[in-house]
Amino acid sequence: MTFRAPVPEYQFLLNHIVGYSDISATERFSEASDDVVTAILTEAGKFCDEVMAPLNRGGDLQPAHLENGVLRTSPGYAEGWQAISEGGWIGMSASEAFGGMGLPMTLTTAVNEMMSGACLSLQLAPLMSQGQIEALEHHASDEIKSLYLPKLISGEWSGTMNLTEPQAGSDVGALSSKAEPLDDGTYAISGQKIYISWGDNDFAGNICHLVLARLPDAAPGTKGISLFLVPKYLPDAEGNPGKANNLKVVSLEHKMGLHGSPTCVMQYDGAIGWMIGQPGGGLAAMFTMMNNARLGVGGQGVGIAGAAYQKALAYALERKQGKSASGTIVDHADVRRMLMEMKADLFAARAILLACSQAIDMQTATGAQEWAARAAFLTPIAKGFGTETGMRISETGVQVHGGMGFIEETGAAQFYRDVRVTAIYEGTNGIQAMDLVGRKMMDGGDMAHRLIDEIEEQAERARTTHPNMAEAVWQACESLREATEWLTAQDDLDERFAGAVPYLHAFARVLGGHYHLAAAMADLGGPREKLARFYINRMLPEHASLLAHAQAGSAGARALTLDELADG
Amino acid sequence: MTFRAPVPEYQFLLNHIVGYSDISATERFSEASDDVVTAILTEAGKFCDEVMAPLNRGGDLQPAHLENGVLRTSPGYAEGWQAISEGGWIGMSASEAFGGMGLPMTLTTAVNEMMSGACLSLQLAPLMSQGQIEALEHHASDEIKSLYLPKLISGEWSGTMNLTEPQAGSDVGALSSKAEPLDDGTYAISGQKIYISWGDNDFAGNICHLVLARLPDAAPGTKGISLFLVPKYLPDAEGNPGKANNLKVVSLEHKMGLHGSPTCVMQYDGAIGWMIGQPGGGLAAMFTMMNNARLGVGGQGVGIAGAAYQKALAYALERKQGKSASGTIVDHADVRRMLMEMKADLFAARAILLACSQAIDMQTATGAQEWAARAAFLTPIAKGFGTETGMRISETGVQVHGGMGFIEETGAAQFYRDVRVTAIYEGTNGIQAMDLVGRKMMDGGDMAHRLIDEIEEQAERARTTHPNMAEAVWQACESLREATEWLTAQDDLDERFAGAVPYLHAFARVLGGHYHLAAAMADLGGPREKLARFYINRMLPEHASLLAHAQAGSAGARALTLDELADG
Repeated sequence: MTFRAPVPEYQFLLNHIVGYSDISATERFSEASDDVVTAILTEAGKFCDEVMAPLNRGGDLQPAHLENGVLRTSPGYAEGWQAISEGGWIGMSASEAFGGMGLPMTLTTAVNEMMSGACLSLQLAPLMSQGQIEALEHHASDEIKSLYLPKLISGEWSGTMNLTEPQAGSDVGALSSKAEPLDDGTYAISGQKIYISWGDNDFAGNICHLVLARLPDAAPGTKGISLFLVPKYLPDAEGNPGKANNLKVVSLEHKMGLHGSPTCVMQYDGAIGWMIGQPGGGLAAMFTMMNNARLGVGGQGVGIAGAAYQKALAYALERKQGKSASGTIVDHADVRRMLMEMKADLFAARAILLACSQAIDMQTATGAQEWAARAAFLTPIAKGFGTETGMRISETGVQVHGGMGFIEETGAAQFYRDVRVTAIYEGTNGIQAMDLVGRKMMDGGDMAHRLIDEIEEQAERARTTHPNMAEAVWQACESLREATEWLTAQDDLDERFAGAVPYLHAFARVLGGHYHLAAAMADLGGPREKLARFYINRMLPEHASLLAHAQAGSAGARALTLDELADG
Repeated sequence: MTFRAPVPEYQFLLNHIVGYSDISATERFSEASDDVVTAILTEAGKFCDEVMAPLNRGGDLQPAHLENGVLRTSPGYAEGWQAISEGGWIGMSASEAFGGMGLPMTLTTAVNEMMSGACLSLQLAPLMSQGQIEALEHHASDEIKSLYLPKLISGEWSGTMNLTEPQAGSDVGALSSKAEPLDDGTYAISGQKIYISWGDNDFAGNICHLVLARLPDAAPGTKGISLFLVPKYLPDAEGNPGKANNLKVVSLEHKMGLHGSPTCVMQYDGAIGWMIGQPGGGLAAMFTMMNNARLGVGGQGVGIAGAAYQKALAYALERKQGKSASGTIVDHADVRRMLMEMKADLFAARAILLACSQAIDMQTATGAQEWAARAAFLTPIAKGFGTETGMRISETGVQVHGGMGFIEETGAAQFYRDVRVTAIYEGTNGIQAMDLVGRKMMDGGDMAHRLIDEIEEQAERARTTHPNMAEAVWQACESLREATEWLTAQDDLDERFAGAVPYLHAFARVLGGHYHLAAAMADLGGPREKLARFYINRMLPEHASLLAHAQAGSAGARALTLDELADG
């Protein structure tokens, strides 16, 4: 089966659900008209189908590997990267001043999602570059920008993020890599970094690492962390890759999935680096890019969900069994249930992803704090629910295939293995949920309540055409409101954290109902209305149990001693 | 980390939750006293820890493979099989007349679960033999029994089940393998079978295949299927393996997990076989063994769940991060939530598994139809929920490990990959759920209602000590009763099938609440009461959304046309 990029679905979502017209109505994005959107989505879809999807299985079977210390990527990946670069896909939303296209993040999100569904391992490489481009645009000096941005945007060079150390995972503040100032204003970076996605490759002329490290006598914890740009090759006077820097790939991880993407242990031994942003401002700078990287990972989950759904449907349509109308398993009620669940959740996760992207674009275009807060609030939901949906749909996709799903040749298993990491990297989904109920509710839950109001307002409007569905969404939203009030009343964050993950999922469930209801109103009597009814009748009710869990507090979760946890 | 068999947990479950004393009070099982139980569980635990667990990772890394057509098993597996055989573990519940121990299935279930947690790939081999032993005990001639049973029970020979063909998976009735009668009363078997677990090995002296095939002019569909015993080597006059039979392993599948267990494509070319049971009675005979094999697969899910929980807890206790009391991640509220969810579901799944086993033993000991119906009803729940729990807990286990969970060396990923097949083989979980709402409710739901009455009776008794928990379980059970009434009122099975899987899970959720409540009553103020409170407050509420889904009918699930399903 060929991967088919979901271009018409995106057009519907942009036009009818997430208010793309608000974006193209701004001066900043006035050129990104509907025609441009259609052209770009169509072109990206073709690219995914023809260039990226054919590379997916080969990357799984022939992982990136080290040959005498030199990293060799999977077959066809170098050509794939070249094609991505030449297509201009890396710098879609990057500044036009340095060769980017300056398009809305909403479009980049759509394209990244399609590319993830086509070939997740390879797509991760440009995603890393995009994060770096954004960090440099916001925090680097003009000199650094002029040297690095054009090459990163064109794909001549590639970028990575170096946060994690063996003793410092989710607790970034515990990192111990060092940066010693040198006489010429540069720094000597030393330390070991782990889980560095695409930490090296054999197709870019230079690999640019953004590395978190501590200056001498820096404050402990997160405040003492600064950010450094550390290239594999030091640029010479002409800006070309010169002398090799003192850094190397020590080893690659043997992972459950995502085999085509090399996950490196990096060693820095006095490597030359340039500070990006202010001393001690490393984490703040990293957060700029991390928020959008989180959105990108949410898109990876949705991308795999979409690809897994397509594959499962294709199998159900072709697998002969039983005496039903079509003679294939698609006629079985239980198979239909699975496909409908997949399709309904896919729509919900995609809508949330795009709504978050839209807020980012509106923030960029208007500078309004309201949009910034909205983007910040939706990001952990888009990441957490997008990747959870990727796991659920790829799991169900395997199930639709029956025994064939467990056989690697089928490809359903690869989606299941590959997508698993998306719930972990760029901040585990637990971290996302704690971010949501902690940092993102430090405003007392104002942003949450504004979204809740918006959901209820639409539900009120929907009562004339869809009274039952509207009432169900409205009621679910009221329960969400109560839970939000309970959570924000808890001054002890531990009380919130013990139910953070269920709360995030409940919020996503209700948002999913909201967008499905919008789709029903936009497609009276049509298939989207039917899908919305399925979601609202059968899947939305889950919010209630999730909210009960969310409001149960920490005492119950901590009721057992460590010894009691170990018993049994 | 070493796998630690959960012996004390089993003792608690047998003594306080599932009424083991009823079993040992029967004449049939009077020798299986508490002392015997403790001795056997302890010995099995030691065996799992010392012999089986050390083989688990090697089987994953060095899968069974074909060398010039000869099957080679993973390192140490031959010695492992030898040890399992010598320990008498294969024939624990087999007839003493042929060398078995005649112990209750409840004990075999406990031992099988522990062995699954220790090394799933290897454990599947004796499980296959156990199924064959049971089928022969019930359906074979005395001559076949005396020749084959002692060797299968001692582990000198091994057994397999051959049902599936490329065109006939869940739809067994579509199979086309042929059996031609020969002059001497034997049959010539021809055809191809796929997904044959442990279809060959290099440690048993003979491999005995139970093969479903059709006699010439047999009726179409399931009624025309007969069962044949087809050994790899034809026994000579002394019953020793003689001339090779006309069958071979064509190829092995490349699977996502369970690498140590060879999954074979088998080719039969006029292989000699003996009919087991009556002509056309193949499926009935297969069902005898299939019911218990389904229980066995449920136990595999629970076994992996237990092992994955242990590994996650050990990691959480040792992984240093943050500034909490212990300095490890176990102090984080979200990690505690995950561990508690895992532990609470593990208890529920194990209790359901043992309750089903207990019913099988009571059926064996008393012959009462009531026990048979109870066992038949609980079997798909034990299989469906046990394997679902295996998937959920191994997924959460990966999550607790963070980035380490995605790295194969850690071992958490292997559980996640291995357990995935348990929701598929021995009848997919969709098939289990359809069996539950279809065949197992052909009595109009009598058995379901008897279980529901039992749950409510206990809840009434619990009101004095645990009023809130008792009320929650009682209310959940009332909702289950209503849904059961709705389901059984649907004459069109399609209406039931469209919600079968959610119904099965809801039933399991309520049964879980029932057993947790029993645990709370048996452990007033103790850790089991606390765990029960966590489950009942936070996880039991899920039954409501599952039941809404279960009663939504088939129209909504079938609302989209095939073209509409494909859009987007």
